[in-house]
Amino acid sequence: MLLCDIGNTSYHFYDGVTQHKVAVADFDPASMTEKLFFINVNPNVAPLLARLPQWVDLGLHVRKERYYETMGIDRIVACAAVDEGLIIDAGSAITVDLMRGGIHKGGFIYPGIEAMASCFKRVSTRLDYAFNFDLNLDTMPKNSQDAITYGFLAPLHAEVMRHDAPLILTGGDAPRLLPFFPQATHDALLLFKGMQKIIEEGGLC
Amino acid sequence: MLLCDIGNTSYHFYDGVTQHKVAVADFDPASMTEKLFFINVNPNVAPLLARLPQWVDLGLHVRKERYYETMGIDRIVACAAVDEGLIIDAGSAITVDLMRGGIHKGGFIYPGIEAMASCFKRVSTRLDYAFNFDLNLDTMPKNSQDAITYGFLAPLHAEVMRHDAPLILTGGDAPRLLPFFPQATHDALLLFKGMQKIIEEGGLC
Repeated sequence: MLLCDIGNTSYHFYDGVTQHKVAVADFDPASMTEKLFFINVNPNVAPLLARLPQWVDLGLHVRKERYYETMGIDRIVACAAVDEGLIIDAGSAITVDLMRGGIHKGGFIYPGIEAMASCFKRVSTRLDYAFNFDLNLDTMPKNSQDAITYGFLAPLHAEVMRHDAPLILTGGDAPRLLPFFPQATHDALLLFKGMQKIIEEGGLC
Repeated sequence: MLLCDIGNTSYHFYDGVTQHKVAVADFDPASMTEKLFFINVNPNVAPLLARLPQWVDLGLHVRKERYYETMGIDRIVACAAVDEGLIIDAGSAITVDLMRGGIHKGGFIYPGIEAMASCFKRVSTRLDYAFNFDLNLDTMPKNSQDAITYGFLAPLHAEVMRHDAPLILTGGDAPRLLPFFPQATHDALLLFKGMQKIIEEGGLC
């Protein structure tokens, strides 16, 4: 079974064993002949995919009533993979969703690493630093670089830990956050696991 | 004793009884004849003020070794006013500083309200909402507007509460944050109190 997670910049394929990415600009989805299941957050490719019968849109098969109306399909699919836990999906935004007994209990959105660093830079040129990912969150910072790094990481960490749930980290920036959440499980394939679950539950395969 | 806190947009005066603001563009500091003490974070007016003997720069009189090198004078002065507590100064950035027994134990920087809302908007047009300041932080959000509002407020709140210190809120956006920190003291004159303390301790008046 071939799966594809489509973002604004790439098609991310997974066949159950190996994964690979292809840039959106370099790929013609009509070139695929095999049936495959996808989720897509890229509005530019949506009309083309809708005309290709081999591309099956899982966005049409998820039970959206279990989530909230404007929730992105990538977030929904990650949640579908988890029965119990707090899912931290670290990309351009960091989405944090709480699952209890297979039920979505809500979630929040926090800026991603690059978005937050740019945000500080826009507030003041004196805050134009790259984050220091060697920071220790146990002591309050005493320089500007650490002060913004702590301001990005410590509040997120404090809020996440408050929920006392198993932590699952996924998304492209998960490896950079993982050292601050040593108790977390890192699952780079979480979205694909959610897609597989939706396919099985919907009897689509 | 006349005090003035100079920012990028205004001169903020306080005579010990009343306060008022004048726009930077509408005010000539040379028009003041009375001696006054100031702090200034506006690089454009600094050269002019340096030539006016009636304007006494408190930035030259604070004991900077008590703080860290790149810490803004406004933050230092707010800290000087507090012996014990966590100071939340909510402006274009939100600075959070911990004072214990009159000693600065460090601090962090978080984006201000407008900066964080703009940050979400830049990540995605689907996150282009004004924050919902009627939000209840006790339940996880189930819509996009609440998800970004919670993502702004709840992490900051969780980190602030972790320090178990008296809370002092100041800065232009303090009134908007105050409902989320009901145990906090709101002190709109904190910077001026810090300036007064520095003047007294330095025997400047």
